[in-house]
Amino acid sequence: MTDKYEDGKQAVDYKDMAPKDVRALIRSGVITGQTSGMCDGYAQANLVVLPKDLAFDFLLFAFKNPKSCPLLEVTNAGDRLLTEIADHADIATDIPQYRIYEKGVLTGEYTDVSSFWRDDLVSFLIGCSFSFEGELLSADVPVRQIEENCNVPMYKTNIPCKSAGVFHGNMVVSMRPIPYELVPKAVLVTGAMPKVHGAPVHIGNPEAIGIRDINHPDFGDMVTIKEGEVPVFWPCGVTPQSVIMDSKPDFCITHSPGHMFVTDVKNVNLKY
Amino acid sequence: MTDKYEDGKQAVDYKDMAPKDVRALIRSGVITGQTSGMCDGYAQANLVVLPKDLAFDFLLFAFKNPKSCPLLEVTNAGDRLLTEIADHADIATDIPQYRIYEKGVLTGEYTDVSSFWRDDLVSFLIGCSFSFEGELLSADVPVRQIEENCNVPMYKTNIPCKSAGVFHGNMVVSMRPIPYELVPKAVLVTGAMPKVHGAPVHIGNPEAIGIRDINHPDFGDMVTIKEGEVPVFWPCGVTPQSVIMDSKPDFCITHSPGHMFVTDVKNVNLKY
Repeated sequence: MTDKYEDGKQAVDYKDMAPKDVRALIRSGVITGQTSGMCDGYAQANLVVLPKDLAFDFLLFAFKNPKSCPLLEVTNAGDRLLTEIADHADIATDIPQYRIYEKGVLTGEYTDVSSFWRDDLVSFLIGCSFSFEGELLSADVPVRQIEENCNVPMYKTNIPCKSAGVFHGNMVVSMRPIPYELVPKAVLVTGAMPKVHGAPVHIGNPEAIGIRDINHPDFGDMVTIKEGEVPVFWPCGVTPQSVIMDSKPDFCITHSPGHMFVTDVKNVNLKY
Repeated sequence: MTDKYEDGKQAVDYKDMAPKDVRALIRSGVITGQTSGMCDGYAQANLVVLPKDLAFDFLLFAFKNPKSCPLLEVTNAGDRLLTEIADHADIATDIPQYRIYEKGVLTGEYTDVSSFWRDDLVSFLIGCSFSFEGELLSADVPVRQIEENCNVPMYKTNIPCKSAGVFHGNMVVSMRPIPYELVPKAVLVTGAMPKVHGAPVHIGNPEAIGIRDINHPDFGDMVTIKEGEVPVFWPCGVTPQSVIMDSKPDFCITHSPGHMFVTDVKNVNLKY
């Protein structure tokens, strides 16, 4: 089975494809690579699956920290079928690649987690900044890591999340350099989309939020900050992942980085 | 101990008092009556307390039905002190009157539930339409049940809530008659306050949402609908209460009707 997308040659095949058709190709094992750029205009989601005994604490963490952890859908315990953000989607098969963690240790990567499913598992689908980046580009605000074809730079901060039960930790942020004159527009465009992280948490002074060296991100790749640009920091979906891993849950399933769940929800509808 | 407020003579004493001072009087047993009109400009909240084994399902119900069940704060299991919407507030003592239900049956009313407290109890503080009614009045939109000094009329509807675990049922709505020319303003004012039920769910045709006789509300009192006015229906906080009671939880604490928790949050701040 060839992963047509991973080699980059046929990304265009998936850019204009409907989400349900892409999910069918993922389910059947034809697509196993990263989902960036697929189904242009539709939201993609991060996945976290936890046993029900941790699900209340995590749902409470998300409620208290909606900017870091904006929930698009949460399932009942045991349910594999989604009902809100996609039709006929099986969360155990419809993501190209999953990771399983036991007591916080990565124990394997899989293209299907059906055989690991349990009646006590709750799935959390979390909004992703891909959605607001599309809106920024539409509004002629540059998104540097897309221009430079690398990962967005991400940093640990000193901004505490509100703790909930066993879950606590600091916010992780992503950074995009924005020309000074476009900063207000960047705030307004992203602030209108609270379900995908919303407005920035900080503009301009990395030290003020505990970032010692802007040139060495904790995750992702550094991008060019040009003359006349200011670093703007948004809450990042890595926050809940790092908070969960710190708590070392007995069992946890996530998507593999970049291998997201492709929803039926248009990005533009995340504004309403 | 006299309840100065219940007889209506000294409401003005509490209208301009700070929430923390009113809560102190409630805690010490001086105030045991209804809280309507107290601490002008500050939000009041409904209370539901459930054992942790039901808390995930209820938090999920609230997440899926934010218009009926807008959460202002949720505690960790066992915590009596609030941290978000009030300083130094003990949820087991700072409400004038509580109800305890066992298997869905009301077993008692109390002015203090400290002696019933358990380490597995989770408190849910839910936004209330008092907050948006203040904004409607400020914007010169009439609120009929305040003019007529009675309870707002409430109706069962055929609008299904999204179910979550053991919790399912239809939405209960409150109705306010609004002059035709003020309906758009009423929608905009309340739509700007999603943490206290937000925009109406229906305007104009009671039958369309399963209300057979507008003149006989299922709860509360009927109010006058004048010539040139249209009935406007908002999601109501009675919805989560009725959904919970239908599920007959082993143990549940709520506030008594009208005896709300007075928060430190200004209504105007519920817009942001």
